[in-house]
Amino acid sequence: MARRGQYAKGAAKRAEILAVALEVVAEQGTRKASNREIAARVGLTQPGLMHYFSTREELFLEVLRARDERDHEQFYSPLQGFQGFLHVITHNASVPGLVRLYVEYSAEATLEGHLARAFFEERFTWVRGLMVEAVEIEQAAELMGPDVDTAYVADLVIAAADGLQVQWLLDPSIDMADRLSRLWQGIRAASWPVVVA
Amino acid sequence: MARRGQYAKGAAKRAEILAVALEVVAEQGTRKASNREIAARVGLTQPGLMHYFSTREELFLEVLRARDERDHEQFYSPLQGFQGFLHVITHNASVPGLVRLYVEYSAEATLEGHLARAFFEERFTWVRGLMVEAVEIEQAAELMGPDVDTAYVADLVIAAADGLQVQWLLDPSIDMADRLSRLWQGIRAASWPVVVA
Repeated sequence: MARRGQYAKGAAKRAEILAVALEVVAEQGTRKASNREIAARVGLTQPGLMHYFSTREELFLEVLRARDERDHEQFYSPLQGFQGFLHVITHNASVPGLVRLYVEYSAEATLEGHLARAFFEERFTWVRGLMVEAVEIEQAAELMGPDVDTAYVADLVIAAADGLQVQWLLDPSIDMADRLSRLWQGIRAASWPVVVA
Repeated sequence: MARRGQYAKGAAKRAEILAVALEVVAEQGTRKASNREIAARVGLTQPGLMHYFSTREELFLEVLRARDERDHEQFYSPLQGFQGFLHVITHNASVPGLVRLYVEYSAEATLEGHLARAFFEERFTWVRGLMVEAVEIEQAAELMGPDVDTAYVADLVIAAADGLQVQWLLDPSIDMADRLSRLWQGIRAASWPVVVA
């Protein structure tokens, strides 16, 4: 029992560190987010911090995972479908450090054997599933036609969202939510058979 | 005159190195592409190679630039508009090392002060211009309606192409050209006013 108590305490501290690292990265980006500051904010020394995460790479990967969980809970509503996805995108525009972390790690994950590869493979599967759900919600509400190719829509919307992040980081005047919202309107419009007058 | 001859000789050698580095990166990716192999293929020692490019980062950035020039010449036809763009995408599926280099450097370019930042800012401006041209070609041929928002189309198609590269590197069964070609059809379809029967 003592052991389980120990474990629970360790897990709670890990969660606390992740919540703090999430804030620091959102504010400052991965390059400037120092171990010292993260450790100080959770009342640990730097070696104490590295007891919970053996490398910065591991810490930042877990930040990405914690961020997905938080965003999904806080901004995504399955009942709203695509609107829930847009809420996440709109929120992203306020956390450039996390957007950059995602862009950087998703690029590196394409290397065979990279620490983040399995995470991104699973994440793409998960987000594709959310997109298929979003299409089905629209079909049930007759906002989209019955013959939508959901695999195509999922690949495309996710790709556009990912690509827009790079453009937005280079030029913050790009309105990611506007671009994606119009893409979705286009997919809706194209999902109905053309009526010839 | 001697000086100019010297300069021309240097420029020719630089171009030769770039052409070889382009091949080696296309085959092996940036991580495995060794200075030794690139130097050997152009008949130089490694220090001799570094006389032309002071860092690997600089060499690889120039590889990206040389690749754009070659692709534009070889695969892109302004008369074909979007088809020219699709030729480049189809070709990309045969050079994963170069696609990865692009993904990696475009991610890093989002850092303030990164070596590749100016290159990607200029590149986005250039490719946006090509996309606007592609829309105008289609409008002239009455394949697209007159009221297309070209800024939106350019941002979206480029974002989708960039995002699909990450998905394709993780899962080569994703058909980038198919996804983009269908996106273009959708943009065409949505560009005409809806006829109510």
